[in-house]
Amino acid sequence: MDKIFNPNSIVVIGVSERPTNMGRNIVANLLDFGYRGEIHVVGQREGVVFGHRIRTSIEELPQGIDLAVILTPAPTVPDLMDACGRQGIRRVVIESGGFGEFSAEGQELSERLRAVARKWGIRFVGPNCISVINMDSGVCLPFVRLQRHTLKKGRVSVVSQSGGITIVYTGLFSSVGLGISKAISMGNKLDLDETDYLAYLLEDKNTDIICLHLESIEDGQRLMELARSSSKPILLHKTNVGQASAHIAQSHTAALANDDRIVSAAARQAGMIRARNFRTMVNYAKGFSLPPVKGNTLVAISRSGGRAVVAADMAAAFGFDLYSFPREFREKVKGGFRAKVIEPTNPLDLGDLFDFRIYVNILEECLKIEDVDAVLMAHAYSSLLERKAAHRLTHAVQELAAKYNKPVALCPFSESEEILSLKKDLEYPTFSEIDEAMEALAVSRDRYRRLRKARGEPVSISPLRPKDELRRILTSPKGGDTLMLHQALEVCQGYGIPVAKWATASSSEKAVEAAKRLGYPLALKILSPHISHKSDAGGIALGIEDEKSLKRACEEMLSLPRERAPGTPLSNRHSQISIPHSPFSTPHGFLLQKMISGGREVILGGKRDPSFGPVVMFGLGGVYVEVFDDVAFRVAPLTREDAEEMIAEVKGSRLLPGIRGEKPSDVEAVVDSLLRLSQLLQDFPAIAEVDINPLVVLEKGTLAVDARIVLK
Amino acid sequence: MDKIFNPNSIVVIGVSERPTNMGRNIVANLLDFGYRGEIHVVGQREGVVFGHRIRTSIEELPQGIDLAVILTPAPTVPDLMDACGRQGIRRVVIESGGFGEFSAEGQELSERLRAVARKWGIRFVGPNCISVINMDSGVCLPFVRLQRHTLKKGRVSVVSQSGGITIVYTGLFSSVGLGISKAISMGNKLDLDETDYLAYLLEDKNTDIICLHLESIEDGQRLMELARSSSKPILLHKTNVGQASAHIAQSHTAALANDDRIVSAAARQAGMIRARNFRTMVNYAKGFSLPPVKGNTLVAISRSGGRAVVAADMAAAFGFDLYSFPREFREKVKGGFRAKVIEPTNPLDLGDLFDFRIYVNILEECLKIEDVDAVLMAHAYSSLLERKAAHRLTHAVQELAAKYNKPVALCPFSESEEILSLKKDLEYPTFSEIDEAMEALAVSRDRYRRLRKARGEPVSISPLRPKDELRRILTSPKGGDTLMLHQALEVCQGYGIPVAKWATASSSEKAVEAAKRLGYPLALKILSPHISHKSDAGGIALGIEDEKSLKRACEEMLSLPRERAPGTPLSNRHSQISIPHSPFSTPHGFLLQKMISGGREVILGGKRDPSFGPVVMFGLGGVYVEVFDDVAFRVAPLTREDAEEMIAEVKGSRLLPGIRGEKPSDVEAVVDSLLRLSQLLQDFPAIAEVDINPLVVLEKGTLAVDARIVLK
Repeated sequence: MDKIFNPNSIVVIGVSERPTNMGRNIVANLLDFGYRGEIHVVGQREGVVFGHRIRTSIEELPQGIDLAVILTPAPTVPDLMDACGRQGIRRVVIESGGFGEFSAEGQELSERLRAVARKWGIRFVGPNCISVINMDSGVCLPFVRLQRHTLKKGRVSVVSQSGGITIVYTGLFSSVGLGISKAISMGNKLDLDETDYLAYLLEDKNTDIICLHLESIEDGQRLMELARSSSKPILLHKTNVGQASAHIAQSHTAALANDDRIVSAAARQAGMIRARNFRTMVNYAKGFSLPPVKGNTLVAISRSGGRAVVAADMAAAFGFDLYSFPREFREKVKGGFRAKVIEPTNPLDLGDLFDFRIYVNILEECLKIEDVDAVLMAHAYSSLLERKAAHRLTHAVQELAAKYNKPVALCPFSESEEILSLKKDLEYPTFSEIDEAMEALAVSRDRYRRLRKARGEPVSISPLRPKDELRRILTSPKGGDTLMLHQALEVCQGYGIPVAKWATASSSEKAVEAAKRLGYPLALKILSPHISHKSDAGGIALGIEDEKSLKRACEEMLSLPRERAPGTPLSNRHSQISIPHSPFSTPHGFLLQKMISGGREVILGGKRDPSFGPVVMFGLGGVYVEVFDDVAFRVAPLTREDAEEMIAEVKGSRLLPGIRGEKPSDVEAVVDSLLRLSQLLQDFPAIAEVDINPLVVLEKGTLAVDARIVLK
Repeated sequence: MDKIFNPNSIVVIGVSERPTNMGRNIVANLLDFGYRGEIHVVGQREGVVFGHRIRTSIEELPQGIDLAVILTPAPTVPDLMDACGRQGIRRVVIESGGFGEFSAEGQELSERLRAVARKWGIRFVGPNCISVINMDSGVCLPFVRLQRHTLKKGRVSVVSQSGGITIVYTGLFSSVGLGISKAISMGNKLDLDETDYLAYLLEDKNTDIICLHLESIEDGQRLMELARSSSKPILLHKTNVGQASAHIAQSHTAALANDDRIVSAAARQAGMIRARNFRTMVNYAKGFSLPPVKGNTLVAISRSGGRAVVAADMAAAFGFDLYSFPREFREKVKGGFRAKVIEPTNPLDLGDLFDFRIYVNILEECLKIEDVDAVLMAHAYSSLLERKAAHRLTHAVQELAAKYNKPVALCPFSESEEILSLKKDLEYPTFSEIDEAMEALAVSRDRYRRLRKARGEPVSISPLRPKDELRRILTSPKGGDTLMLHQALEVCQGYGIPVAKWATASSSEKAVEAAKRLGYPLALKILSPHISHKSDAGGIALGIEDEKSLKRACEEMLSLPRERAPGTPLSNRHSQISIPHSPFSTPHGFLLQKMISGGREVILGGKRDPSFGPVVMFGLGGVYVEVFDDVAFRVAPLTREDAEEMIAEVKGSRLLPGIRGEKPSDVEAVVDSLLRLSQLLQDFPAIAEVDINPLVVLEKGTLAVDARIVLK
């Protein structure tokens, strides 16, 4: 990878003397950004660009050039790469477009590219990208002309799916005082993808903060693994969230699991910080460029009362405690005031104070206080009268923050031009809004907290039944893609998820016998392939109190019409009677289940995400999921903390400890069931979806009442 | 009021020749901003500032100057204002601080100021403010020196509580191409407050958009009345939200009703748009400066694929439909492409198009389409190579938006300096982020929709019982500040809020008789003054099925200890048995109530807000309110639409029509009960709080089961 970011020699392929030629821009960028290695140039016609002779064939090049950059029409690229291979080139950047997934030719070209790369052991960036900028080595390969003075060298690195957005981020980070180390536009990611670049940046000694802009995630599990191992903050700006949940899925879990929520869950789980947009991405990076926020205690200093009020509002909104100054401190500060109008409370309103040197003194006094974890300073000044003093103040702030290794989030307010010029003058980030500064501090605090919190390893659980037996059930479903209820319950039990006592019976008579063993009250459920939503189909009878009722219920179910028109209501005993589409075929029999009284109903779910693999869902019973959309996701395998956090994330979970004198539900047992479900999904890739709905949480333990398992 | 904003003559009081004198700044500002009326100057010492002689006494001034501006130490202000009164001055601006509410002297000075003003019929701005800027007349009165070239004349007016924030907003609106008409910093609002300024700005022909920054709201009802009557968009940035809910209130409704939520509710009700912070305030104003968004159909144009994806995400997030281009349109656009790589879908990705004139043509084609309501255009350009063409493009966008009277939200992306210079070059707002542009369009669309929607008058309802009778109940409570349950139920019934059948009984024997009339099953509730939370105190027994049980329940209640230690559990029949603090005193008897089966429980509440007066609350039964905080507020009197909207605002209301085959609940009856509660609160200012919890919503009608009324 290092040969891409720090090559000793580069050949640019697709260059001509024409002023509109874009290959030329690449050469110009390299020169302008101070690249110090060898530059070779190849094009169709002979000529000279920037003093470099254009060769007309790759064969003319010396052997073993570190990196080739190709910007020629798509159909020519595979052969050119092959020629590169022959010349000993093993790293290639392909900037050309035209490999799109939508055209057959594009697909075929992509396959050919991959084949050539395999043949020579070539690793490549792109195609369809503006590729790579390394501010540290001057490797600046975009085909659009960049201006050196608009970009600043720094310690933020950016990986982006889009060329345009790569340029935006390099510009933004340069203009806010942070600066760029590496920037990568990945394009179609035919070979190298975000995980490869991320792995490189995690080791890169010039990178402190990593920003990912992704439209798709190729290998979610590996991304999470890398993020978990990272000591550097990783910020994620994931776009392309709209189309995700376009197709309607069959089961609850799948319908609710829109990919974007899984992205958010995975980011949280792996310690990545998800940014809402460009602005928050830059804002969070500013926060991380300051010393870490190690606690919750804040001092806010403002030169205007109005902004002091905003600072107090925002401190409350982001969960900071405003430090209470001791009396001696207040006396000291008050001594520095020109007038005594404003009280030295927190936020400190310094509106009456015109000598900025006193600000510095006050700031230092605040930073000296051991309990103070961070300072927010809102500083309005007149560019006409106070410019010099204000610039001196900001430099002093920077020095003090470094001296005490504490974050000072500085919000200067003045005319736009002045603020821009201040930012240029500084190597220290400033914030444009008090709420943005407060959010950046909060994000830094939360990451620090998380890093301090011990996180266990994913829990590994052995099933109670031999895996081979379970595999047999899972490979011979009797209901098509969906396991029959008794099979699903067996699989749950096999993984140690307790199920309410049940039995099967092939006839009414046998049902009566089974009922004697189980005891009343009972639920009767029909066992039939092709019926996935039993209740919609009239295949469930609840609260059967005695033998007579049981017999009648069995007969009713057996006498149900084999085919029924969609939407015909059934006269049965329970309320779910709207039937979308449910022809009854021959039932295989009955399942009897002991009714459970009391307890709180929750839903456990699982599905497989194309990027992240097995995903576990948790939510409270029907209404909470449907009305409040109150569910949490995590990517399997789960740690115990993951399971606990996902329960805590669901608002309705506040009901579990019991409110208003209710008996508490066994949250630990839910954690256990979630961990077991996670293991099940991991052990059996054949499972596409699981729905345990409801799982009844009792005062002691849980009991699954219904389960649905869909195979791929 | 016009004499404050457009005076023919001004006297500035508190001026000296000293360079640090702040009164001088006022004179300098007036001159700099081109004020064309007479300027008089008064100070302690004789002298000359900017050619104006400083007079040492107000008596020397000519009679009848339009406006006096006072900036002298607080204790001198009342006498100076008195002298102004003698000279026939009737409008005063007081910029001096020191009238704070925290000191006794400040309070006294404030009272004296008010008295002097009353004596002469003077209306005044401030004190403790930087006062007024009118860009139209050059009346620029702040005591801080402002730079004329940093402020732009425009059609936005700002009213703010804080001087610092007034300056921020004038700067912000000037720098984004909108410009300022009037700006007012109100200070302590001893006389004129936000409603006075708002009333003036609503009539002001130079103001199109009104921005309010408030830390407190003096007269919420009048503010809402003015806002309702406004044809101009009113944006509200309300800060000082943190401390609101500091004290713990007795009843549910009061505890949940944090003032800030009432502010949000009132804003929505009156059609004001609440901004989260400075940035959204400016952003929304940009949106309102464009032609209105009359519908939901949007075209997004982007020069980069990455931003096109963001635009699609944001269109979905803000509820816009992306227009589907007909084939002819696509062909036409495709013809203009240099290459055929990118598909002309919506968002239109014009990444491959370098000739900006074609952008203009495409934009015009889009605007011509009748179904298209708005266009969002993300335009990245190189300041080095494309600056001129980009500026031409933005001017063309402005012209086309005007020509077709449709909003085009333009998001230019380039280097920061270039964007700043572009903004200066334009009289047209541009947006910095795609999501901000989309949000501004959405806010404009929502306001347009609201203006089109017919809104009825507040509903007026006559009580079923004579008001005098109800007044008697409300003025002779037997339970201290809290009405006893039977009184509260009578008041509800008196206003036509149906109550589950009930009766009172003074003894067990009479309870048995009453039960015969009511029928079983019954609930028994103790009637005792001083017991507000009956269930916590063991004063409720539910589900009494027969006479025997009733007798036992009566006896149990009577035999309860008169005093019980806090926290002692009671062995009674219902589950709410944790007793915080509830000494039993002599009961006045029993209340029997018919048990209701079925239905959905909701909560109706009412309280009095110090700014807005009577406020009505709606939420679903206990768990939803407590766990999901899922409640809505509106300020009384309610229109039918208000009541409907507040029900719709509560997420849990989705349960009311019945989910999964449940019977629907009577939402219309809830609307009716809300309107009746609104009327009750209005008719009887003595009522501080009402809690109807639960109100059971049946398939037909509602029934209140419990009610609590607290008097002031």
